[in-house]
Amino acid sequence: MTLYNDSETNSQKNSQKHANHDCIMTLGSHCSLQVLKGAKDEGFQTLLICEEKRVSLYKRFRFIDKLIVVNNFKEILNQGFQKNLIDLYNPIMIPHGTLISSLSMDDIEKFKIPIFGNKWILRWESDRVLKQQLMIESSILPPKQILSKNDIDGLCIVKLHGAAGGKGYFLVSDKKSFEEQAQKLIESNVIISEDQLFIQKYANGVPVYLQFFYSPIENELELLGVDRRYETDIDALGRIPAEFQMSSNLEPSYTVVGNIPIVLRESLLPEAYSMGERFVDAAGKLVPPGMPGPFCIEGVYDNGANFIAFEFSARIVAGTNLYVSGSPYSDLLYDVPMSMGRRIALEIKKAIKSSKLGLVLT
Amino acid sequence: MTLYNDSETNSQKNSQKHANHDCIMTLGSHCSLQVLKGAKDEGFQTLLICEEKRVSLYKRFRFIDKLIVVNNFKEILNQGFQKNLIDLYNPIMIPHGTLISSLSMDDIEKFKIPIFGNKWILRWESDRVLKQQLMIESSILPPKQILSKNDIDGLCIVKLHGAAGGKGYFLVSDKKSFEEQAQKLIESNVIISEDQLFIQKYANGVPVYLQFFYSPIENELELLGVDRRYETDIDALGRIPAEFQMSSNLEPSYTVVGNIPIVLRESLLPEAYSMGERFVDAAGKLVPPGMPGPFCIEGVYDNGANFIAFEFSARIVAGTNLYVSGSPYSDLLYDVPMSMGRRIALEIKKAIKSSKLGLVLT
Amino acid sequence: MTLYNDSETNSQKNSQKHANHDCIMTLGSHCSLQVLKGAKDEGFQTLLICEEKRVSLYKRFRFIDKLIVVNNFKEILNQGFQKNLIDLYNPIMIPHGTLISSLSMDDIEKFKIPIFGNKWILRWESDRVLKQQLMIESSILPPKQILSKNDIDGLCIVKLHGAAGGKGYFLVSDKKSFEEQAQKLIESNVIISEDQLFIQKYANGVPVYLQFFYSPIENELELLGVDRRYETDIDALGRIPAEFQMSSNLEPSYTVVGNIPIVLRESLLPEAYSMGERFVDAAGKLVPPGMPGPFCIEGVYDNGANFIAFEFSARIVAGTNLYVSGSPYSDLLYDVPMSMGRRIALEIKKAIKSSKLGLVLT
Repeated sequence: MTLYNDSETNSQKNSQKHANHDCIMTLGSHCSLQVLKGAKDEGFQTLLICEEKRVSLYKRFRFIDKLIVVNNFKEILNQGFQKNLIDLYNPIMIPHGTLISSLSMDDIEKFKIPIFGNKWILRWESDRVLKQQLMIESSILPPKQILSKNDIDGLCIVKLHGAAGGKGYFLVSDKKSFEEQAQKLIESNVIISEDQLFIQKYANGVPVYLQFFYSPIENELELLGVDRRYETDIDALGRIPAEFQMSSNLEPSYTVVGNIPIVLRESLLPEAYSMGERFVDAAGKLVPPGMPGPFCIEGVYDNGANFIAFEFSARIVAGTNLYVSGSPYSDLLYDVPMSMGRRIALEIKKAIKSSKLGLVLT
Repeated sequence: MTLYNDSETNSQKNSQKHANHDCIMTLGSHCSLQVLKGAKDEGFQTLLICEEKRVSLYKRFRFIDKLIVVNNFKEILNQGFQKNLIDLYNPIMIPHGTLISSLSMDDIEKFKIPIFGNKWILRWESDRVLKQQLMIESSILPPKQILSKNDIDGLCIVKLHGAAGGKGYFLVSDKKSFEEQAQKLIESNVIISEDQLFIQKYANGVPVYLQFFYSPIENELELLGVDRRYETDIDALGRIPAEFQMSSNLEPSYTVVGNIPIVLRESLLPEAYSMGERFVDAAGKLVPPGMPGPFCIEGVYDNGANFIAFEFSARIVAGTNLYVSGSPYSDLLYDVPMSMGRRIALEIKKAIKSSKLGLVLT
Repeated sequence: MTLYNDSETNSQKNSQKHANHDCIMTLGSHCSLQVLKGAKDEGFQTLLICEEKRVSLYKRFRFIDKLIVVNNFKEILNQGFQKNLIDLYNPIMIPHGTLISSLSMDDIEKFKIPIFGNKWILRWESDRVLKQQLMIESSILPPKQILSKNDIDGLCIVKLHGAAGGKGYFLVSDKKSFEEQAQKLIESNVIISEDQLFIQKYANGVPVYLQFFYSPIENELELLGVDRRYETDIDALGRIPAEFQMSSNLEPSYTVVGNIPIVLRESLLPEAYSMGERFVDAAGKLVPPGMPGPFCIEGVYDNGANFIAFEFSARIVAGTNLYVSGSPYSDLLYDVPMSMGRRIALEIKKAIKSSKLGLVLT
């Protein structure tokens, strides 16, 4: 572990008692710049766990007070490492997508450094069955499931049970094309029978990501931003004339490379807020202590302007990086530029002031 | 009528004389958050007419001083209701898309509470023949009309005379496909003969919405923002491979669910401003007192970068919700974050100061 | 030459000695509003060379101190004109896309008014062979070249050697379609043989433009914004159902009409910065004094999230117009709204203060 940007000596730090949490830390990826910028704006010390190869990036930003270099994020699981950080900085860890993809759920749940939000709910985000259960409890409707290939009527998406991300997905429009594709998978030994395939009605509509923050301190839900993902190469497909799509054997992928800002029709906000509230309620019921902090409901609006959810994220999402200096929605609520990262820091500050840290940390 | 967020007692209010207009009101939908936030930023009292089902949304925003709950927006047509509001608050009503879709033009024209802008021009926005007349007077060119099916040469859009929104529209690419589609409509008794169909050249190009504000006080036109709509499911169509579009019998719709920010090439601004000025001039000629306040010209840029207009809105549009804290265009003109809603309030303030309210109210 | 907005008399101006550069000028197009707004925010006088037909546009903006009207931008090549400007204002010229397209490289290189950045590198942007050389030196990979029609395997783009912009480009997906298209060009006497055609693998992925600023004063590179272009009518193609694309003989064009803001996945930033640094290094080696000031690397992210560059711009690009009041990236670096135009002015100010103007002017 190497320290950069560190003006104090270790002995000074060791002698300092962190009676309170005055340091916010996160892993160097995903939304860490926004998170630490926001933390600094709210008066916190900031600490970044940074992989060697990314030091040159993160050294550029003055709002990062301490840069702790690791070869691999898994090093933070070391008990001595964690104890050391707690002794030195008594930090609060902000979880994000890279924490989830770098560590196992067991590891996160055993983490000694306090984690902002509900670390137990991260498992529900990662596990397809638990995720489905939480969505149903929230009355947030996933795309319709097709139970038999005989019921395929119009565009459907077919997934292998247990497949992750967008891998192994394919589209079909009728029973015949389903059977052809399934046959190919059987012949190439990917599956043994059609029963291993899961058919869902294709959720046809424009993608929308709703960025929420729930404050257990204020008992209030805030919609702080809306975006859509920018995915390669599916979002480039429309730039290829149909004739060449047909003759080119393209197999589009859904790899996220960025985000595009959007605002919603104001008349869609009541249902958006209602979805957020149902999610907070359901989380409180199924996964105590519920859903303190940022989360995101992800789906499409269909041609009737109904929201069809296909995912949630039970922590800050990267689409919030659009709004480092506030969004059209946060600007309706706050007089200062309020990013999601800053909102997290503000909640911690409020929790400290009102001695309610227990409500926002796990 | 129920009042929320109301710190003063009614008796206090009744005793208060509103010699001047210090209250801005609107209906709770469309762009009301932006409008009332802007009004508050310019120092006005704010009042929202809110449907019961949306109270929980609008109670979240501190810049809304009074929330008046109705079961249906039509209740504001009640003479006693209006008189009551005038006595209590002497408000100015900001019209927007929901006002137009909730009330008839006759009702709006008879409204007793003063309306910001020109309420008479709203009829020209809603009536296809008047709209066409105003566009031609402005030399803002709509897509070319095809007078005979024999002249169909390339992609065309076919509309039923009198159809609203995007309903009943279909695309054709040659005489044969026109005849086939028309035959279907005849067989299903939607039309009696092909003569009821109106053929327009398909305006092929990228959609662009130009958000203007014309100040009769300063006699100046301002381009305050540019956006494009985010429409379901047409804007998701490109994410479906051509092969599946062909086999899936999709019938795309054009339902607006949001907006995406854009900036224009600077070299397109002179013609954009010129269109805006021609529209203001034409409105002044055909529909006195013309076009005070916000309006929008809506169309596409074709492959020669020529603007083909297909619509205008003679009032604030929802795309301005992107710019609650200003746009790249308003930031060139103002030192404070100037949303369209705030610009409206600023104009009212200037009108009050210079005793020219008559120029901005009808 | 006519002066507008000019409160001082000429005699006053002539008597004034401009020991230092306190005036920033540019041509009225492309990104001139942003550039002069930024210059004004940093305390400079601002001067715009404006074509007669655009005076009515540029007179609207109060941050433009002097408007010098010409019939044609080529008038600025007149030696007397330049001498006059130097005597009166001693300005620094900010080059942009319109300067490059209006003047020849020879003319720009002989320009007497000092130009911000490296005027010699503009030739490398305009010349396809030099451009390729600089990209290879930077290890910024262009799309794969296909040396023989027999190697066409999947979607390719075919260009005429020497063709500019997107003109004369066409897509092919196999040897047969290549031969058919080539035959058409031969029959219409556009080419004599297939050898005149240049085949490139189609760079399939979502377009991304990386807006950089390199400071020779601070010896630091900054990523100040990210956008994608909004091109007509290719970006409208996805809104036309495949069936009608097939039957309508569309020939999409790639005319830029605007820009859309995006943010990148944070994990893509290290490679983005690395590309920028390699470009700065390569420019320093091949075209002294290198790459002071703004530049842009333009390409797509493919389905492996690898960046395939197809262009660079060695000066400010129009996509920066999105960020008149700062971007999510500049907001991480600066406490004030820092547009690219303002960043240029700030660099000039720093150069003046540290007597290092030689590092940023040519």
